[in-house]
Amino acid sequence: MAGNVTILTKADLSTCVGLNETALTVIEDAFEALANGKIVMPPILSMDLPMVNGEVDVKTAYIEGFDGFAIKVSPGFFNNPQLGLPSLNGLMILFDAKTGLVKSVLLDNGYLTDVRTAAAGGVAAKHLAPSQVNCATVFGGGVQARMQLKAAHIAKPFSKAFIWARNFEKADQAAKELSADLSIPVVATHDPGRAVAESQLAITTTPATSPIFKKEWLHPGLHITAMGSDQEGKNEIEAEALMAADLYVSDRISQCEKLGELRSALNAGWTAPDIPELGQIITGQKSGRMSDDDVTICDLTGTGVQDTAIAAHAFKVATSEDMGQIFETDGTTK
Amino acid sequence: MAGNVTILTKADLSTCVGLNETALTVIEDAFEALANGKIVMPPILSMDLPMVNGEVDVKTAYIEGFDGFAIKVSPGFFNNPQLGLPSLNGLMILFDAKTGLVKSVLLDNGYLTDVRTAAAGGVAAKHLAPSQVNCATVFGGGVQARMQLKAAHIAKPFSKAFIWARNFEKADQAAKELSADLSIPVVATHDPGRAVAESQLAITTTPATSPIFKKEWLHPGLHITAMGSDQEGKNEIEAEALMAADLYVSDRISQCEKLGELRSALNAGWTAPDIPELGQIITGQKSGRMSDDDVTICDLTGTGVQDTAIAAHAFKVATSEDMGQIFETDGTTK
Repeated sequence: MAGNVTILTKADLSTCVGLNETALTVIEDAFEALANGKIVMPPILSMDLPMVNGEVDVKTAYIEGFDGFAIKVSPGFFNNPQLGLPSLNGLMILFDAKTGLVKSVLLDNGYLTDVRTAAAGGVAAKHLAPSQVNCATVFGGGVQARMQLKAAHIAKPFSKAFIWARNFEKADQAAKELSADLSIPVVATHDPGRAVAESQLAITTTPATSPIFKKEWLHPGLHITAMGSDQEGKNEIEAEALMAADLYVSDRISQCEKLGELRSALNAGWTAPDIPELGQIITGQKSGRMSDDDVTICDLTGTGVQDTAIAAHAFKVATSEDMGQIFETDGTTK
Repeated sequence: MAGNVTILTKADLSTCVGLNETALTVIEDAFEALANGKIVMPPILSMDLPMVNGEVDVKTAYIEGFDGFAIKVSPGFFNNPQLGLPSLNGLMILFDAKTGLVKSVLLDNGYLTDVRTAAAGGVAAKHLAPSQVNCATVFGGGVQARMQLKAAHIAKPFSKAFIWARNFEKADQAAKELSADLSIPVVATHDPGRAVAESQLAITTTPATSPIFKKEWLHPGLHITAMGSDQEGKNEIEAEALMAADLYVSDRISQCEKLGELRSALNAGWTAPDIPELGQIITGQKSGRMSDDDVTICDLTGTGVQDTAIAAHAFKVATSEDMGQIFETDGTTK
């Protein structure tokens, strides 16, 4: 009915959407839609708020054939930890694709973003890592370090992993949790180069502003997913590594040029070849890894189609399970 | 407390925010803040959806010194009337200015936009119309035609008004309602030129894409507020009228160049002089009307500061009246 809005909380959403094969399929389908061009995705609205050490990003995408489209608002306020609050928050709003009416407000505090971001990493590993992944190394000690390793393990069930973070304590804590969650040995390391040498898959999830991943670590049969850089000024991978890889893939070229590893490589003088987007590799429109010995890099900045896809999926599952509270906008709350 | 989000419906909001002197003051203050430069206001995020005859705009502004900032999402889906639904909908989200946490979701279906848009017209009339306004003419037969005339009447309590619309029936209906609401004669007219000749104030509120207001109608002591053009392709006032006026004022130059009457005039070759913004006239930073005989034009495209100001005001009033329903995002809805 017109004017009916379903409010869903983070608690609701985390019971009905998890980081699992279903989530990976939802995000894989979103990248396919992006490649097939059946989307409208305007540039990100970005508001810098240096006076409060904050920023706000708004992303959206309209996918033809979907019942709804989402708008996501992601505030990042980096003084929050001093107040005992998380830096990242926000919500998603799901609109009816035919009428533009608000269908649902998803008060997820960034939870669905975490899931869709990690799921994209899983999709990248599925399509770009070598056929056999025995060992993976993750860079970073935060939420995405954990979730990216889990998502990659769904796609490529490796039997061992390393984790490196600037703060070793954090890496060690994450390693312990991940060992328990994945039932494989996950080891915190002081020597990321040696960890990468053992790995067929590396995932970078840090907010680094100068490279933490060295070109000299590249070796045949390595795939790297770089998802930390999502803003101007961030950079995890040495530009020379992009230049030396057999294949560089972006989630969305127009975004990676501004926000991803691609930006730094272009600034360093790289004359990038014809760059495939991840979705084009999924659909077969462009070639991906040609042999198990290739070195591949996937640059993920996060796209509005992922948000629309995960929000539409979450709404469908939540309402089928009768979750959420419905408001009639023409009715008072009291 | 962190994670507490207050949901307010249109019904809640329309009981605690009205188009009155308070609303005009709230919007006047917002224009002052804009002029004083204590704001961050990124360009509008705009998504065109021709396949469903729709569009979505996202506006925001951060005003230093305010407790919160709003993000507004305004979908316009122009096939909706065929389904018995309004074309314009949407919501506002209010965030804490220090932490970025979601404070409130205002499910207003565009109501607060209607109020803040009309209030801006009232503020323009207050600062730019001649000292004495006896008669006003409004162009258009929709919601804003009604609300703009009411807002102008708050600022300049004229004793007579005309209304013209392409569809005379609509104009006549609006005239009857406005006569009753304002307790003055409001007359629907077939001859807008004659109505303007009698008026000291004209307000255009149409979605016209070619001018409906002629340069030849300008006469000493006339102020025009043009608020219909808020998108590329819209145009209500002949470019020659802007060129001939003693003073042209914009709400935000960078927006009017793209979306307002200014765009058409620049395209027609106007070498615009140093253009004042409405806020700069309110603060006295730039000169406004110099004499009661001047011809003045104010071009309103709608700004994010108006949204932040009205949302913050609405939240304050609503919570002081104990309205809304509070959600803890970490709690389930059921």
